[in-house]
Amino acid sequence: MLKLETFPNQFPNRDYEVEHTCPEFTAVCPKTGQPDFATIVISYVPDQKVLELKSLKYYLFSFRDRGIFYEHSINTILDDLVAACEPRRMIVTGHFNARGGITSKIVATHTAKK
Amino acid sequence: MLKLETFPNQFPNRDYEVEHTCPEFTAVCPKTGQPDFATIVISYVPDQKVLELKSLKYYLFSFRDRGIFYEHSINTILDDLVAACEPRRMIVTGHFNARGGITSKIVATHTAKK
Amino acid sequence: MLKLETFPNQFPNRDYEVEHTCPEFTAVCPKTGQPDFATIVISYVPDQKVLELKSLKYYLFSFRDRGIFYEHSINTILDDLVAACEPRRMIVTGHFNARGGITSKIVATHTAKK
Amino acid sequence: MLKLETFPNQFPNRDYEVEHTCPEFTAVCPKTGQPDFATIVISYVPDQKVLELKSLKYYLFSFRDRGIFYEHSINTILDDLVAACEPRRMIVTGHFNARGGITSKIVATHTAKK
Amino acid sequence: MLKLETFPNQFPNRDYEVEHTCPEFTAVCPKTGQPDFATIVISYVPDQKVLELKSLKYYLFSFRDRGIFYEHSINTILDDLVAACEPRRMIVTGHFNARGGITSKIVATHTAKK
Amino acid sequence: MLKLETFPNQFPNRDYEVEHTCPEFTAVCPKTGQPDFATIVISYVPDQKVLELKSLKYYLFSFRDRGIFYEHSINTILDDLVAACEPRRMIVTGHFNARGGITSKIVATHTAKK
Amino acid sequence: MLKLETFPNQFPNRDYEVEHTCPEFTAVCPKTGQPDFATIVISYVPDQKVLELKSLKYYLFSFRDRGIFYEHSINTILDDLVAACEPRRMIVTGHFNARGGITSKIVATHTAKK
Amino acid sequence: MLKLETFPNQFPNRDYEVEHTCPEFTAVCPKTGQPDFATIVISYVPDQKVLELKSLKYYLFSFRDRGIFYEHSINTILDDLVAACEPRRMIVTGHFNARGGITSKIVATHTAKK
Amino acid sequence: MLKLETFPNQFPNRDYEVEHTCPEFTAVCPKTGQPDFATIVISYVPDQKVLELKSLKYYLFSFRDRGIFYEHSINTILDDLVAACEPRRMIVTGHFNARGGITSKIVATHTAKK
Amino acid sequence: MLKLETFPNQFPNRDYEVEHTCPEFTAVCPKTGQPDFATIVISYVPDQKVLELKSLKYYLFSFRDRGIFYEHSINTILDDLVAACEPRRMIVTGHFNARGGITSKIVATHTAKK
Repeated sequence: MLKLETFPNQFPNRDYEVEHTCPEFTAVCPKTGQPDFATIVISYVPDQKVLELKSLKYYLFSFRDRGIFYEHSINTILDDLVAACEPRRMIVTGHFNARGGITSKIVATHTAKK
Repeated sequence: MLKLETFPNQFPNRDYEVEHTCPEFTAVCPKTGQPDFATIVISYVPDQKVLELKSLKYYLFSFRDRGIFYEHSINTILDDLVAACEPRRMIVTGHFNARGGITSKIVATHTAKK
Repeated sequence: MLKLETFPNQFPNRDYEVEHTCPEFTAVCPKTGQPDFATIVISYVPDQKVLELKSLKYYLFSFRDRGIFYEHSINTILDDLVAACEPRRMIVTGHFNARGGITSKIVATHTAKK
Repeated sequence: MLKLETFPNQFPNRDYEVEHTCPEFTAVCPKTGQPDFATIVISYVPDQKVLELKSLKYYLFSFRDRGIFYEHSINTILDDLVAACEPRRMIVTGHFNARGGITSKIVATHTAKK
Repeated sequence: MLKLETFPNQFPNRDYEVEHTCPEFTAVCPKTGQPDFATIVISYVPDQKVLELKSLKYYLFSFRDRGIFYEHSINTILDDLVAACEPRRMIVTGHFNARGGITSKIVATHTAKK
Repeated sequence: MLKLETFPNQFPNRDYEVEHTCPEFTAVCPKTGQPDFATIVISYVPDQKVLELKSLKYYLFSFRDRGIFYEHSINTILDDLVAACEPRRMIVTGHFNARGGITSKIVATHTAKK
Repeated sequence: MLKLETFPNQFPNRDYEVEHTCPEFTAVCPKTGQPDFATIVISYVPDQKVLELKSLKYYLFSFRDRGIFYEHSINTILDDLVAACEPRRMIVTGHFNARGGITSKIVATHTAKK
Repeated sequence: MLKLETFPNQFPNRDYEVEHTCPEFTAVCPKTGQPDFATIVISYVPDQKVLELKSLKYYLFSFRDRGIFYEHSINTILDDLVAACEPRRMIVTGHFNARGGITSKIVATHTAKK
Repeated sequence: MLKLETFPNQFPNRDYEVEHTCPEFTAVCPKTGQPDFATIVISYVPDQKVLELKSLKYYLFSFRDRGIFYEHSINTILDDLVAACEPRRMIVTGHFNARGGITSKIVATHTAKK
Repeated sequence: MLKLETFPNQFPNRDYEVEHTCPEFTAVCPKTGQPDFATIVISYVPDQKVLELKSLKYYLFSFRDRGIFYEHSINTILDDLVAACEPRRMIVTGHFNARGGITSKIVATHTAKK
């Protein structure tokens, strides 16, 4: 896995929200080998570390050749980002383009244990 | 009824949401024999089983020649999908095209008993 | 008043919502005799009876030649529909077209006494 | 028929366009007796007479109880307005609400003989 | 084939346009047997005959169980409607829902020989 | 100040909402003398009196030549309307057009003491 | 009338278009004394003089207390602006807010004689 | 730092909301020296002081040549505005244009200690 | 290059248009190695051969790992599709996502020599 | 002035269009010293040279501290880009944000002499 970089949060005393939206996510369907396309929305409250935007972009691009199901990819992204920046809470949402006439949305949430 | 397939949920420790939207639902009005058209939205939190997308598509297409009222079709879909994947909770919504100048929306909800 | 028909609710054990939207409501202003136009939205949770769509359409059309104020018409529709289908709860909303440059929305709600 | 009023055009040396849009047109289907609804757009280049807006509104309201087909109503409006204001050219368009799942648009045009 | 009805055009001296839009067209893919969905737009200038709306609706519904390619269905509709009402000119457009991530539009035109 | 008229509420036993939207509000900036423009939204639950629409329109037009700040005008409208119709609760919102590239929204709320 | 200022066109050898859109035009109806509201669009090709934006704004504001019909105001604006900047061609369009449920658009055009 | 001006709140007994939206915020990326662009939304409940709009505009323009990260700029704006007008509560939101295909939103909130 | 399949045109006597829209095109920037994203629109008039949709999809997917400039990819697609189906005319358009804050559109056209 | 780079056009035998849209243009008003904001659209047909995207971005950013009128900036951009890439034809359009309630659009066109 590509390394996700972070930088120190200069406002750790305040709960504030950061939301990144990437409409250019693509992975490969593990069944058919065909590409899937989605918009990924990452919303979180930083604790001590803030996600660096450029490494986030490269991380999301690293799914380009990976065979993975919708539900799996969103939960994997959540696990990887939580491990990297240890946020107070995080929501990852994937809006997947229509396949067989059906569009899909997957939403996974993490909340830090206090 | 067409068999609804599922696959094992790899993230059962986390409550996450899945939402499928199918704008190509069509059934037949039991009174007039004329076709009805709707967009069906299925939103649920998986427990141990995840709905497989392709069999879901075929299941929804199986209403194509069935005479059934709006309210009945949405509650039937909810019952069938709950039986197939035993979700933690599920909401099925139908947005029906105008008939006699009136559009209709039906929303039915299931929550698992703990 | 036109008779509002209903049919038996086949899923009375479940609280589910039905919403009908009629963008073709028209009545007459009791002051000026000029026609008023509105979109009427009827949202309810059926108990034992479900509103039949065709008779609902005729009922709404019956206001076409009636002189009645905005606030009065929405509360009257709510009273008539509640009497006809005895729902668990019902909301009637009217979105009225601009008169004198001002658009108006009226929302009236009924909840059954348990 | 209701009288359509006009007032003298103060800029007859210039070809300029006037367009009135009335989203509140309603007539009655001659087959079923049910109301039809449309948005009427009247676009014209005045010659010596300009259509007075208030009498135009009353004229369009006069169709409220009239049984008439889509195609007939638009051509009739064009004939009546041309007779009233003798424009250099005029286009009448009707955008009719869905009936049987089908929306319809009718466009009729008149150009003055020079 | 279902019979397409017409009625006499009362304004044959004027070239006017009629456009019908049906968002509820569905046919079957001849390769896969899966349903296809499209919005069909029919735009024409009547000569002596006007298409009757109800029989047009039934005609379009008659494709529901027919296996036919996109390009073929649009050209067939054009041929059938031209044969039925002999218009001065006609355009039939089909906007097909995404298949394999690709949406398609087909436009076929007929002009009467003078 | 222009007199705001009311009429008796015929449904005082029910809490229902009335919302009027006026996109044609204009006042004068007290600093620059330039006109300001806003959309005013008035939302309230009537008690014994209902605001009459025509006098409301004239009341809002009475600001046309008045020099007044955004925040002041919205709070003044709320005070005047509350005094006139003594509602159970009322919200007045002003959406002001861009000045210096900045649009502004002001929201003031009144709740009756029981 | 307020003076309309201009400044010299530095690119007179090239035909280029300038379009100003003012959504805050208001005048007074000469019949009822009630305010009218419109969006004014001014599109032109400068010759030797370019309209200065601030004086244009003040000029349009000068209609605020003037009783004038729709058709008259648009033709008057065109005449005044043509006199002030002598453009190669100019189009003035007014999109007037609904009165009696009817919105109106007026378009007047000027082309310089060569 | 540019001085932020305020004026006395004439309605301090009422909690009301003020929201200013500035779509013309631009700063400089501290890494690349390239300009960043954002829409800034400031929403607050005034206590004794109201933010004066013109000085707010100049304050936001003062970031034009400043190298600062997204997260830092939004928290800094919140700190500066809270210091200037001591509101009951305030939310500052920045909607940043896409960089590397990713758009970002930052939301920071302040609530006065009572 | 992936083989583009066609099938015989059953309506060669009629000039009709086919338009395919693929919002899931992705290639690689030859300078940076980063992925580019575009919506490709292919519009053509078939002569004797019609493009088969599935092979078109695979053909467009074949750019996924190819380093190629915007302008080059659109002209290459046009050349390949013209060679495959020899249309009467064809337009290929690419709408590319923002890079450095700038979106780009490329339009290339082919017309058969008669 | 910043150097605008180009690269050789590999398809000079075909007239094809390139359109770049930059929503992040900002310059300074020469009268007030306040920033102006616009979306710039550059549309051209390349001859032997194609505009390189990155240098185009830097070129547009170079206006950030320049005092220049709307009309002047658009004509200047056109002159500079024409000098750099000698296109067959080019259109530059600027959509400027509201100032004093008025938005402006400027369109300048160049066609090569053959």
